[in-house]
Amino acid sequence: MDLALKLACQGMHGVGANPMVGCVIEKAGRIIAQGYHQVFGEAHAEINALNQINHQADGATLYVTLEPCSHQGKTPPCAQAIIESGAKKVIIAMLDPNPLVSGKGVAMLKNAGIEVLAGLLEQQAQQLNRGFIKRMKTGLPFVTCKIAMSLDGKTSMQSGESKWITGESARIDVQKLRSKNQAILTGSGTILADNPAMTVRLQGLSHTPIRVVIDSGHLITDKTLNIFSNDAPTQIFNTDNTKLATNGKIKLEDVLLQLGDQGINTVLLEAGPGLIGAMIESNLIDEFIIYSAPTLMGSHANSMAQLPINQMTDKINLAIHDVRMIDEDMRITASIKP
Amino acid sequence: MDLALKLACQGMHGVGANPMVGCVIEKAGRIIAQGYHQVFGEAHAEINALNQINHQADGATLYVTLEPCSHQGKTPPCAQAIIESGAKKVIIAMLDPNPLVSGKGVAMLKNAGIEVLAGLLEQQAQQLNRGFIKRMKTGLPFVTCKIAMSLDGKTSMQSGESKWITGESARIDVQKLRSKNQAILTGSGTILADNPAMTVRLQGLSHTPIRVVIDSGHLITDKTLNIFSNDAPTQIFNTDNTKLATNGKIKLEDVLLQLGDQGINTVLLEAGPGLIGAMIESNLIDEFIIYSAPTLMGSHANSMAQLPINQMTDKINLAIHDVRMIDEDMRITASIKP
Repeated sequence: MDLALKLACQGMHGVGANPMVGCVIEKAGRIIAQGYHQVFGEAHAEINALNQINHQADGATLYVTLEPCSHQGKTPPCAQAIIESGAKKVIIAMLDPNPLVSGKGVAMLKNAGIEVLAGLLEQQAQQLNRGFIKRMKTGLPFVTCKIAMSLDGKTSMQSGESKWITGESARIDVQKLRSKNQAILTGSGTILADNPAMTVRLQGLSHTPIRVVIDSGHLITDKTLNIFSNDAPTQIFNTDNTKLATNGKIKLEDVLLQLGDQGINTVLLEAGPGLIGAMIESNLIDEFIIYSAPTLMGSHANSMAQLPINQMTDKINLAIHDVRMIDEDMRITASIKP
Repeated sequence: MDLALKLACQGMHGVGANPMVGCVIEKAGRIIAQGYHQVFGEAHAEINALNQINHQADGATLYVTLEPCSHQGKTPPCAQAIIESGAKKVIIAMLDPNPLVSGKGVAMLKNAGIEVLAGLLEQQAQQLNRGFIKRMKTGLPFVTCKIAMSLDGKTSMQSGESKWITGESARIDVQKLRSKNQAILTGSGTILADNPAMTVRLQGLSHTPIRVVIDSGHLITDKTLNIFSNDAPTQIFNTDNTKLATNGKIKLEDVLLQLGDQGINTVLLEAGPGLIGAMIESNLIDEFIIYSAPTLMGSHANSMAQLPINQMTDKINLAIHDVRMIDEDMRITASIKP
């Protein structure tokens, strides 16, 4: 199953709105086939593995990271193909998170007399497809908020100057983080202040996510801005195409629901303190990746997030999941405590 | 030598202005005696070890964490006692940092025909007595700045509210930190805002350092304040007893020089953003111990240090030496890059 999970990861940039899935077929203690879901709309992991052995899996065991599908979608149901292959046992990491189909693949296999076990390395499988799972359950993508700040929590000088807070290795790490997400979300303020391209410029990483700008003030009109480069599509959410919140600003949840409707499972938020603060207050951030540089930018500099908190009882409590050094910077992975 | 260093540590609360020193005597592969400097003004480590074997160390090797003294001070010179004991070899971690006597103990031993090696575990020995070393070289004590802050770098709400930022384990760690220092330094603002006792209240830690308050405005007059409790002496530095800086405020370096004159090797700075900022600007902090809680206190809260920095080129660069979790809080050890 560990191998199947590793195979699944290889589909990261191809599967689009689909989950990443890997499959390993074992017979008499030997691996006889393996596959993963490579491209959205094309064959699923199980079929890619079965194809390697001409669908002859008599008496074999399949390890699949996600419950095989039972329905005719863009491709025929995988459960049916497994039944026809002659496999005697299927081990699944996790059930399908889509409430409409969850459990149906397992039922179809069991009805055909195949032994089915579910839950092996389940947490790892859930972690792998946390974006897909969240979208299936809520309609919203999984939002990671990246912040590059000084040790005293500042992300820019009062003048707006912010280059560079973190070191080169941390900035390379951000490139990898971008390439793991389907969309980069930012605000019009960041676009106008820094004119960033928000692309993946690291050699060996070919995937640039779509770029999404929240623009309450219809400020982003100049098509020569780097955000409109040819590297990836760019979407602007403004008051014409998005619901408004009670404060007259764009309703952030509506932006994310629209992205979810487009099949976006994962969003990386790279924005200024205003948008980050509003996203925190709307409880729309699932995970923080904070690069904390070993510097003090001082008390005049701008805080990482505009959060008007006045009492200790109202402070926002996080859970820290991981801390590691990226050269001289710390990288802190955290989430808001429920 | 590792054992000798561990022995040396046991003198932490007794040696006062003196360095911590440990000594182990070995003969034919066996440890025959060990000792450490226990109490200021009383026997040194070498003598305490030699006493265990009635000064009969014929052919033995002494491991000492600091160069044996060659001069008559409050006690007779240790180098002479070693020579008389019949020891044939002395291994030293580091030379005496006092420029007036450094090397003289080694010379006295060598002149008597004893083999001397210096530099074994030298870095560890320097770390152990970094306060003593700094005071010998500069007259200033080693200053550790403790900060308890949120992940976004805030140490109090706009109202001044600050209890509690970090968890109980981190606060216990602060008690240990206090007990390792000879003085706690704070400002009048902190005294008036929080009325802290600045004592060591943890069971098993009996040593409370002296308490030192910097009070430019002659504000600390009420002797019922907790800082005047009977647990330890308290010194107030004000415009009557301290030199002034060009800005009319108390010259911080003069406070530290006065503490150095009193034999204070180690100072723990526990203060508000004003004094911490001024100490950073005066380049008087040797080490930061920052407890970073997994919380966001928001953009209205007060920054850890008042530092009016306007350009990225003026930011203060730190070197991070250690990061570890204290339950849910991070503890970051850092120093300002030279």
